[in-house]
Amino acid sequence: MTFQLDDRLSSSCIELNDWPLCRILLKNNADYPWLILVPRQNKTECIEDLSQPLRHQLMDEIAELSIIIKTYFKPNKLNVATLGNSVSQLHIHIVARFTYDKLWPHGIWQAAQTEVLYSEEQLKQLTVDLRSLTKLY
Amino acid sequence: MTFQLDDRLSSSCIELNDWPLCRILLKNNADYPWLILVPRQNKTECIEDLSQPLRHQLMDEIAELSIIIKTYFKPNKLNVATLGNSVSQLHIHIVARFTYDKLWPHGIWQAAQTEVLYSEEQLKQLTVDLRSLTKLY
Repeated sequence: MTFQLDDRLSSSCIELNDWPLCRILLKNNADYPWLILVPRQNKTECIEDLSQPLRHQLMDEIAELSIIIKTYFKPNKLNVATLGNSVSQLHIHIVARFTYDKLWPHGIWQAAQTEVLYSEEQLKQLTVDLRSLTKLY
Repeated sequence: MTFQLDDRLSSSCIELNDWPLCRILLKNNADYPWLILVPRQNKTECIEDLSQPLRHQLMDEIAELSIIIKTYFKPNKLNVATLGNSVSQLHIHIVARFTYDKLWPHGIWQAAQTEVLYSEEQLKQLTVDLRSLTKLY
């Protein structure tokens, strides 16, 4: 069965590349550089649903993408999380945080969050850069 | 060098057990069943600071503890996250969420969160149960 990305993820994100396990997404939220890893496994809702080799692969891809995000955005901290309260398909947020950002030092998964989209130009540039940076895994 | 747990973690949590990599903590927050894994490695602030074998071990301990939490608390969802915006020592939150809890479906890492402590009795019972459940890894 072909992997099917959740509609709410595909409509709020740009698809960047596929790594051995995950699809890499850029969330269209200009407040925080925000990437998402989605294991290309249907019917997978939590980490324990993955076999041990796939869990380890997921961890490697989280570490790899974290390094790329740190190098590119130079944030003060990365916040890594899987919540899935709204979208049940397993997906891992990796969010670059800055000490001067909107919600620092709090989490960004707040109630009633209003999202600021990237400009068309910003989004184009980011997509090109991040596609290229995440190409060679 | 002996592992040193961050003061803010030790003062807000009960130490349950040590697994091969992590110390297991129960956060004293009665709003959500909330456990924390802390790799017993000094000077470790993010996942990428761990070697690959330790990262894989961390992933295994996250999966193992997730299963224990699900079995014991029967939540609707687990939220797994490492933020570290305030406490820089690497620690992974595993929080049991219920569709009827205070902040569902939002994240619990909100600004101005007031915390409700467990009663002495609740805390004692939980500590005994969870120490026993997490003993044999």
